[in-house]
Amino acid sequence: MSFFDIFKKKKSKDVAKDRLMMMLAYERANTKIENLDEMKKDLINVVKKYLNVKDVHIKSNSNQDIETLEVEIILNK
Amino acid sequence: MSFFDIFKKKKSKDVAKDRLMMMLAYERANTKIENLDEMKKDLINVVKKYLNVKDVHIKSNSNQDIETLEVEIILNK
Repeated sequence: MSFFDIFKKKKSKDVAKDRLMMMLAYERANTKIENLDEMKKDLINVVKKYLNVKDVHIKSNSNQDIETLEVEIILNK
Repeated sequence: MSFFDIFKKKKSKDVAKDRLMMMLAYERANTKIENLDEMKKDLINVVKKYLNVKDVHIKSNSNQDIETLEVEIILNK
Protein backbone atom coordinates (compact mmCIF):
# COMPACT_ATOMS: atom_id res chain seq x y z
CA MET A 1 0.00 0.00 0.00
CA SER A 2 1.46 3.30 -0.99
CA PHE A 3 1.85 6.20 1.30
CA PHE A 4 -1.31 7.80 0.03
CA ASP A 5 -3.60 4.86 -0.53
CA ILE A 6 -5.20 5.38 2.83
CA PHE A 7 -6.56 8.69 1.68
CA LYS A 8 -8.48 7.10 -1.09
CA LYS A 9 -10.41 5.01 1.38
CA LYS A 10 -11.60 7.97 3.34
CA LYS A 11 -15.17 9.05 2.86
CA SER A 12 -16.05 12.39 1.42
CA LYS A 13 -17.42 13.56 4.75
CA ASP A 14 -13.84 13.89 5.90
CA VAL A 15 -13.16 16.58 3.38
CA ALA A 16 -15.30 19.52 4.31
CA LYS A 17 -16.96 21.48 1.57
CA ASP A 18 -15.20 24.45 0.04
CA ARG A 19 -11.93 23.32 1.47
CA LEU A 20 -8.65 22.26 -0.02
CA MET A 21 -6.26 20.16 2.02
CA MET A 22 -2.58 20.27 1.27
CA MET A 23 -0.07 18.09 2.99
CA LEU A 24 3.67 17.71 2.95
CA ALA A 25 5.39 14.71 4.48
CA TYR A 26 9.07 13.88 4.71
CA GLU A 27 11.48 11.88 6.76
CA ARG A 28 13.15 14.21 9.19
CA ALA A 29 16.53 12.54 9.40
CA ASN A 30 17.11 12.39 5.67
CA THR A 31 15.40 15.44 4.38
CA LYS A 32 16.47 18.67 5.89
CA ILE A 33 14.39 21.53 4.60
CA GLU A 34 16.08 24.82 5.16
CA ASN A 35 13.79 27.78 4.93
CA LEU A 36 10.75 25.61 5.48
CA ASP A 37 8.74 28.61 6.62
CA GLU A 38 9.54 30.43 3.41
CA MET A 39 8.59 27.42 1.33
CA LYS A 40 5.34 27.09 3.23
CA LYS A 41 4.45 30.73 2.53
CA ASP A 42 5.33 30.36 -1.14
CA LEU A 43 3.17 27.24 -1.50
CA ILE A 44 0.21 28.98 0.09
CA ASN A 45 0.72 31.99 -2.14
CA VAL A 46 0.50 29.75 -5.19
CA VAL A 47 -2.84 28.39 -4.00
CA LYS A 48 -4.02 31.93 -3.31
CA LYS A 49 -3.13 32.87 -6.85
CA TYR A 50 -5.46 30.22 -8.28
CA LEU A 51 -8.25 30.04 -5.76
CA ASN A 52 -10.37 32.48 -3.80
CA VAL A 53 -8.92 31.78 -0.38
CA LYS A 54 -10.78 32.85 2.73
CA ASP A 55 -8.60 31.41 5.47
CA VAL A 56 -5.61 29.13 5.98
CA HIS A 57 -4.85 26.87 8.91
CA ILE A 58 -1.43 25.30 9.26
CA LYS A 59 -0.49 22.44 11.53
CA SER A 60 2.92 20.83 11.89
CA ASN A 61 3.35 17.39 13.34
CA SER A 62 6.11 14.96 14.09
CA ASN A 63 5.52 11.27 14.33
CA GLN A 64 8.55 9.13 14.91
CA ASP A 65 10.72 9.92 11.91
CA ILE A 66 8.11 11.62 9.80
CA GLU A 67 7.48 15.31 9.75
CA THR A 68 4.14 16.40 8.34
CA LEU A 69 2.80 19.77 7.47
CA GLU A 70 -0.95 20.04 7.07
CA VAL A 71 -2.45 23.07 5.40
CA GLU A 72 -6.19 23.52 5.41
CA ILE A 73 -7.27 26.13 2.88
CA ILE A 74 -10.78 27.44 3.32
CA LEU A 75 -12.27 28.88 0.16
CA ASN A 76 -14.82 31.58 -0.44
CA LYS A 77 -17.98 30.33 -2.07
CA MET B 1 -10.25 11.83 13.68
CA SER B 2 -9.13 14.54 11.36
CA PHE B 3 -8.48 14.06 7.71
CA PHE B 4 -4.77 13.75 8.31
CA ASP B 5 -4.54 11.81 11.54
CA ILE B 6 -4.13 8.58 9.67
CA PHE B 7 -0.83 9.79 8.32
CA LYS B 8 0.61 10.17 11.75
CA LYS B 9 0.05 6.52 12.45
CA LYS B 10 2.03 5.41 9.46
CA LYS B 11 5.50 4.10 10.09
CA SER B 12 8.54 5.82 8.73
CA LYS B 13 9.20 2.96 6.31
CA ASP B 14 6.31 4.26 4.25
CA VAL B 15 8.14 7.47 3.52
CA ALA B 16 11.16 6.60 1.48
CA LYS B 17 14.40 8.36 2.19
CA ASP B 18 15.28 11.53 0.34
CA ARG B 19 11.73 11.99 -0.72
CA LEU B 20 9.13 14.60 -0.11
CA MET B 21 5.47 13.75 -0.52
CA MET B 22 3.00 16.46 -1.33
CA MET B 23 -0.69 15.90 -1.54
CA LEU B 24 -3.72 17.95 -2.41
CA ALA B 25 -7.23 16.77 -1.65
CA TYR B 26 -10.54 18.44 -2.34
CA GLU B 27 -14.15 17.63 -2.82
CA ARG B 28 -14.84 17.60 -6.52
CA ALA B 29 -18.41 18.83 -6.48
CA ASN B 30 -17.75 21.87 -4.33
CA THR B 31 -14.28 22.90 -5.29
CA LYS B 32 -13.71 23.55 -8.90
CA ILE B 33 -10.07 24.28 -9.58
CA GLU B 34 -9.62 26.02 -12.88
CA ASN B 35 -6.09 25.89 -14.20
CA LEU B 36 -5.26 22.95 -11.98
CA ASP B 37 -2.35 22.02 -14.23
CA GLU B 38 -0.89 25.48 -13.91
CA MET B 39 -1.26 25.42 -10.14
CA LYS B 40 0.38 22.01 -10.01
CA LYS B 41 3.37 23.28 -11.97
CA ASP B 42 3.67 26.36 -9.80
CA LEU B 43 3.60 24.28 -6.62
CA ILE B 44 6.32 22.01 -7.89
CA ASN B 45 8.39 25.00 -8.93
CA VAL B 46 8.22 26.33 -5.39
CA VAL B 47 9.56 23.04 -4.05
CA LYS B 48 12.30 23.10 -6.68
CA LYS B 49 13.29 26.55 -5.53
CA TYR B 50 13.97 25.31 -2.00
CA LEU B 51 15.16 21.77 -2.50
CA ASN B 52 17.52 19.96 -4.78
CA VAL B 53 14.96 18.04 -6.80
CA LYS B 54 15.98 15.04 -8.86
CA ASP B 55 12.65 13.79 -10.12
CA VAL B 56 8.92 14.35 -9.71
CA HIS B 57 6.10 11.84 -10.03
CA ILE B 58 2.52 13.01 -10.17
CA LYS B 59 -0.55 10.88 -9.70
CA SER B 60 -4.16 12.02 -9.81
CA ASN B 61 -6.92 9.99 -8.26
CA SER B 62 -10.64 10.19 -7.77
CA ASN B 63 -12.38 8.39 -4.98
CA GLN B 64 -16.09 8.94 -4.71
CA ASP B 65 -16.34 12.69 -4.24
CA ILE B 66 -12.72 13.34 -3.41
CA GLU B 67 -10.10 14.31 -5.90
CA THR B 68 -6.53 13.80 -4.81
CA LEU B 69 -3.30 14.84 -6.36
CA GLU B 70 -0.19 13.07 -5.14
CA VAL B 71 3.21 14.49 -5.89
CA GLU B 72 6.29 12.47 -5.04
CA ILE B 73 9.40 14.62 -5.11
CA ILE B 74 12.67 12.73 -5.23
CA LEU B 75 15.62 14.69 -3.93
CA ASN B 76 19.28 14.59 -4.73
CA LYS B 77 21.41 13.54 -1.80
